Amino acid sequence: MSDFAIGVDVGGTKALAVVVSDNGTVVDQLRSGTPHGRDADPGARAAEVVADQVLELSRRQGIDPRCVPIGVGLPGLMRRDGHLAFAPNLQSASGSDLGALLGDALGRSSIVAENDANCAAIAEHAWGAGRDIDDFVMVTLGTGIGGGIVADGQLVRGHSGFAGEIGHMVVEANGALCRCGARGCWERYASGGGLQRLSREAALDGRLPTVVARVGAANRVKGEDVTRAAAEGLDEAVAVIDRVGWWLALGLANLTAILDTGCFVVGGGLSEVAGLVLPSARTHLAGLVEGYDARATITIVESAFGSLSGAMGAALVAFERAS
Amino acid sequence: MSDFAIGVDVGGTKALAVVVSDNGTVVDQLRSGTPHGRDADPGARAAEVVADQVLELSRRQGIDPRCVPIGVGLPGLMRRDGHLAFAPNLQSASGSDLGALLGDALGRSSIVAENDANCAAIAEHAWGAGRDIDDFVMVTLGTGIGGGIVADGQLVRGHSGFAGEIGHMVVEANGALCRCGARGCWERYASGGGLQRLSREAALDGRLPTVVARVGAANRVKGEDVTRAAAEGLDEAVAVIDRVGWWLALGLANLTAILDTGCFVVGGGLSEVAGLVLPSARTHLAGLVEGYDARATITIVESAFGSLSGAMGAALVAFERAS
Repeated sequence: MSDFAIGVDVGGTKALAVVVSDNGTVVDQLRSGTPHGRDADPGARAAEVVADQVLELSRRQGIDPRCVPIGVGLPGLMRRDGHLAFAPNLQSASGSDLGALLGDALGRSSIVAENDANCAAIAEHAWGAGRDIDDFVMVTLGTGIGGGIVADGQLVRGHSGFAGEIGHMVVEANGALCRCGARGCWERYASGGGLQRLSREAALDGRLPTVVARVGAANRVKGEDVTRAAAEGLDEAVAVIDRVGWWLALGLANLTAILDTGCFVVGGGLSEVAGLVLPSARTHLAGLVEGYDARATITIVESAFGSLSGAMGAALVAFERAS
Repeated sequence: MSDFAIGVDVGGTKALAVVVSDNGTVVDQLRSGTPHGRDADPGARAAEVVADQVLELSRRQGIDPRCVPIGVGLPGLMRRDGHLAFAPNLQSASGSDLGALLGDALGRSSIVAENDANCAAIAEHAWGAGRDIDDFVMVTLGTGIGGGIVADGQLVRGHSGFAGEIGHMVVEANGALCRCGARGCWERYASGGGLQRLSREAALDGRLPTVVARVGAANRVKGEDVTRAAAEGLDEAVAVIDRVGWWLALGLANLTAILDTGCFVVGGGLSEVAGLVLPSARTHLAGLVEGYDARATITIVESAFGSLSGAMGAALVAFERAS
């Protein structure tokens, strides 16, 4: 078995590539922007970006890019054969076989690809916050919300391999329009995109006067402005974060009803604000879960690897494929 | 192994007891009303009703009620030890160990009890519409909505045994109040209770003038009045049924996102109107499932045993326990 693998987590806004040792240590990492819009050739630009990352990391670490195990995590419906069947948050690659394109770009055979949140679940289960926990749901908060369901120690894959698309569970019928085409999807309320949307709404409603004064105009308010102000303890910003926490708890309550999950591991790009959002979600959960008092304690924990877990899991999938 | 077993499905409005042969044939059945309200002694009156049913069926079939395998299906959170931990639709028995009470009433040891929708899933998987299907969700439409999730041929039980409470997935944040204490639960929109509520609402809104004229007053309109009128083809009633079908499809779309289930088996007490509601749900599903076109065909089929499947599954659980 190889000592190192490269894992790349291609998200809606950035691609994160890591070099991981076989005991789960990240020895190097690199972030790049993700190409947007619809290409004539789906996935071509994304494959280019990732190939550049692989070459750069290989050069830095003295690794041969034609031999090192490489895995890619992608947002959306991944078929078991590696095709990205549908990716509302990465439309430039929707419909492509990025693993094959990447293999071509690197002059080697197809690269293994897996759903990004499944990657995160696998990494947390092997090395992180889901270690020794046989039933948990990995919840990745990024541009959208991804999920990886571990039941009885096994990843739940579903009929075509698409299980875990928890961000597209509708929690507000006829609610906010989602990039998937539906309305009221959970990720429109509790992801990074949800924070952004709720922040903008609050600013335009006059509920964030101090934050608006800081940035100059209501329509310039971003999620990170609110996060920063909430971290300082500004009440108007804390209220918006608390609302995001309530929506997060609502979706976790739904997953609890359906799966009776005792543990949620929260990661992804928004996990940097986990310290603000998760306490709020924990508080609201009790009032939202059916029969909360009759149940065992439900824990919501931060992922051990934060925004790294998807890329680490992609590397782990590559190790497994290579072994 | 015994040739016959008795299964009882204790629902929110009635208890249905059946005598089932070991090949899944129902040889006798009996319906009784379910006691309501909170007892000083939770479950005592429900146990009495069920014990009477068992004695009556035993007498009719020449069975010894102290030896025949007996199983009970109950609505709500069933612990693996048989305790009904929380039952918003059967509050008179919430918190009780109905299996033990029933054993006492019949002068024998504790009777095996299981969640009613899990029972239905087990029966459909063994003998009915879920035969040879390894991944499906049983959806029971009654007073509420119950669920039994079969993945890879196994019933998903979850951390405490409470998995499958799909009716309490919130689909309308801050929506209609549910008996579980939460707001906007799916079962407030797509169950028999949901049909009742949406019918009453439509009547009071003036959207059911013909039906209201028939029954005399808007606040006297019941779900079955609308079902009957819809079966006759009355447009105003068909529109209400279509709305129930839309809500049903919304929840099924959520389950598809989370579990990637390729098949739903719909049963329960409301399944008698399945011929009206399911075509509507099938039509709406395509517009509600994320990446519908990228997925394999999703089938929504009627249960093979209708309102009998819960009781039949309870009998099957009893057979398994006895063997």
